Amino acid sequence: MARPTPLSGFPEWLPTGRVVEQHVLDVLRRTFELHGFAGIETRAVEPLDQLLRKGETSKEVYVLRRLQEEGTADGGAEQAAAGLGLHFDLTVPLARYVIENAGRLTFPFRRYQIQKVWRGERPQDGRFREFTQADIDVVGQSTLPYHLEVELPLVIAAAFAALAEIGVPPVRILVNNRKVMEGFSRGLGLEDVEAVLRSVDKLDKVGPEGVTALLAAEAGASPDQAAAMLELAGVHGDDATVVDRVRDLARRLEIQDEMLDLGLTELHQLISAASRRAPGTVVADLKIARGLDYYTGSVYETVLVGHEQLGSICSGGRYDALATDGSTTYPGVGLSIGVSRLVSRLLSAGLVEATRAVPSAVLVAVVDEESRAASDEVAAGLRGRGIPVEVAPTAAKFGKQIRYADRRGIPFVWFPSAGDEPAAHQVKDIRSGEQAEADPTTWQPPAQDLHPRAVPGGGGPGAA
Amino acid sequence: MARPTPLSGFPEWLPTGRVVEQHVLDVLRRTFELHGFAGIETRAVEPLDQLLRKGETSKEVYVLRRLQEEGTADGGAEQAAAGLGLHFDLTVPLARYVIENAGRLTFPFRRYQIQKVWRGERPQDGRFREFTQADIDVVGQSTLPYHLEVELPLVIAAAFAALAEIGVPPVRILVNNRKVMEGFSRGLGLEDVEAVLRSVDKLDKVGPEGVTALLAAEAGASPDQAAAMLELAGVHGDDATVVDRVRDLARRLEIQDEMLDLGLTELHQLISAASRRAPGTVVADLKIARGLDYYTGSVYETVLVGHEQLGSICSGGRYDALATDGSTTYPGVGLSIGVSRLVSRLLSAGLVEATRAVPSAVLVAVVDEESRAASDEVAAGLRGRGIPVEVAPTAAKFGKQIRYADRRGIPFVWFPSAGDEPAAHQVKDIRSGEQAEADPTTWQPPAQDLHPRAVPGGGGPGAA
Repeated sequence: MARPTPLSGFPEWLPTGRVVEQHVLDVLRRTFELHGFAGIETRAVEPLDQLLRKGETSKEVYVLRRLQEEGTADGGAEQAAAGLGLHFDLTVPLARYVIENAGRLTFPFRRYQIQKVWRGERPQDGRFREFTQADIDVVGQSTLPYHLEVELPLVIAAAFAALAEIGVPPVRILVNNRKVMEGFSRGLGLEDVEAVLRSVDKLDKVGPEGVTALLAAEAGASPDQAAAMLELAGVHGDDATVVDRVRDLARRLEIQDEMLDLGLTELHQLISAASRRAPGTVVADLKIARGLDYYTGSVYETVLVGHEQLGSICSGGRYDALATDGSTTYPGVGLSIGVSRLVSRLLSAGLVEATRAVPSAVLVAVVDEESRAASDEVAAGLRGRGIPVEVAPTAAKFGKQIRYADRRGIPFVWFPSAGDEPAAHQVKDIRSGEQAEADPTTWQPPAQDLHPRAVPGGGGPGAA
Repeated sequence: MARPTPLSGFPEWLPTGRVVEQHVLDVLRRTFELHGFAGIETRAVEPLDQLLRKGETSKEVYVLRRLQEEGTADGGAEQAAAGLGLHFDLTVPLARYVIENAGRLTFPFRRYQIQKVWRGERPQDGRFREFTQADIDVVGQSTLPYHLEVELPLVIAAAFAALAEIGVPPVRILVNNRKVMEGFSRGLGLEDVEAVLRSVDKLDKVGPEGVTALLAAEAGASPDQAAAMLELAGVHGDDATVVDRVRDLARRLEIQDEMLDLGLTELHQLISAASRRAPGTVVADLKIARGLDYYTGSVYETVLVGHEQLGSICSGGRYDALATDGSTTYPGVGLSIGVSRLVSRLLSAGLVEATRAVPSAVLVAVVDEESRAASDEVAAGLRGRGIPVEVAPTAAKFGKQIRYADRRGIPFVWFPSAGDEPAAHQVKDIRSGEQAEADPTTWQPPAQDLHPRAVPGGGGPGAA
């Protein structure tokens, strides 16, 4: 085949990039499990009618068709009728999984899910057609206490705190509460809350004048009402005084609304807990609206500090009706990390890099093909003690075998004893050139050389 | 939504099933990395023309289409022209990845890859439309030494040896060598080797008479020639004498063929090494042909002992031309584990089960909502020492909180000190009922309770 070119929107990493991605995924999994989230996977496909329930996403869906569907009598017709598409997020599948298995799950159901999703969008920087998401959600049966809206962004904060040591920049988790916006909006006399939210959500894109125009056109807002909404949207801060400022604003504008009060009490609770448990990471930002109309309480967006133009790398919120089976409603709160968007930036900006491309800490040299079994035996012994090892592919001259290890980034080369004397084994650190006798039953590489690691990069591109 | 029903051929596990699957995947990853295989992932899609190079797989491919492809000027036309399908294995993507990145990889390239694949086949027991494969391959540039054909099945043997402790039945890796079959066949005077291999490959399905008929019809074999091929196919054994038996057979039939000799030397090398390093696991079975025409050396199939009717759970072989870019050819040898087929059987037969459905080892009780922060603090401290913890969702009566932990399978409930005295913390093992004072800065659960584990099951169905 001719040299193929990469497919736009479908990112792939070289082995070093995968080391970085795998480290990120391992940290996420570990953090989620420490917080009691159970891992699940769902199938990649969902019935089209489920995927298209929200009209706005319809254009993003990849539809599946069996190549020879017409020709098969068995599943073709049934499947074409059902219509399957690739999932574009992990929330629609979660809702379906919860309803399907409700009787076999315990609630509140705490789950994490790390999988690929697909969207037929136009690819651009940080926006892919295939990408990995890492989601955490807690789903209740009929009820879901508010404190989970406090806990979930703190789990995300803990995950990113753990990622800081490999060079991932700090994050800022921006939070708001739909009840505050809705109560404030109604208190102002603007009843089409959805239109208000949609307009405010565009603030970063169209600026204050644009939002004022949108609010007038779509929500019938007067210049004063629009100015008040913009004043609310301008409030932000990482301590509880932010709530006082909204209260002051409401008092000045003579807004009284029960939902606003409830929302502010909630937001106060979140910001207080966050400033104690993850100081500086969680910031109230009253302009965060999130376009999606199913959020009903807290909403979250997350930026990588210094890379704000990348957009949100972790978003979510509270939804009172994640799913319903007719008799029971399942409220939920969740956040979704855009792993591919994050890793792509970590690699392209050289923020994180891998110490080597291969797992092997040791290359066992081969004296000659007749004694390959002796090298295999040394390798098996080292592996039995948890040391990743490969055996040289050919019994070339030792200099060539050392260069082979060097090219792969393998730090140690093992020279097996030619005879039966165990003391005659030697191991060479090919970085320092130091060579010493070593006992295959006890020798250990330094801990930092045992596995490839993700480490802070030089800052320049090239890790990918 | 009405209660959805599972989609045939698209398996999903409950959280306990996922604990088992995740353990299997972790063991595979660890084993592959100990042997120096680097993990990669490739995109889920490949151009259709690449997927359809082998005509026989065409009916299995799922083709993608963007729902509103017609309506978009940007990528629609280009994409429809290119035509994308979901990969049906991890070998086609590997070949493409190697060619695309040849200049940035070091050869022999040792990689493992654990991903979902899709085939639009009719679902049946152990045969899915979406399933997880775990592949290892070594790809050389122009050359690839034979000893890798010895090493790879031994890596698989090591992986299954590590899985035995959770209750996975032993495996038998059946090996053969295409050179033996090809040399023997030509030595007999049967020149259409592909037809011979295809016929012998059906032995288990159609029996010896059926194969005799097939050999006559498709390869023009006389009754004597067919009988000789069947005699070869009947040879099996796990020590080097199996090679002697083939040599004796060839001598008796006066077959002389260089390729046969080379194949037997290779097979002897494999069986000798295997009987030393994984005694009883690797068995030469001269009827293993593998239908696919790209294998050129060793071929492998693997059965789960006691579950042979499930079919092969790990297959592969040597291919001299995995990929070629016109100037360079890349030979490879690889094996692919059908993880979903394996896990599905482990769960449905109750061979392996999970100790619990949730990661949490501890539920921290909440005295009242006012003191939730104190419980959160205990939880954070325990997590900081690597103990998975969740905090009770409501400050119900302790009896109710204990029942909550019990329902989730969480072994310990922590009762935080009401005041400031650390000595007043108590922890209860809810299985034994034992309760004792505990220091949140030092307490550890027993190692076997720290994480959910996969363990041998009772043998009856129900683990899923």
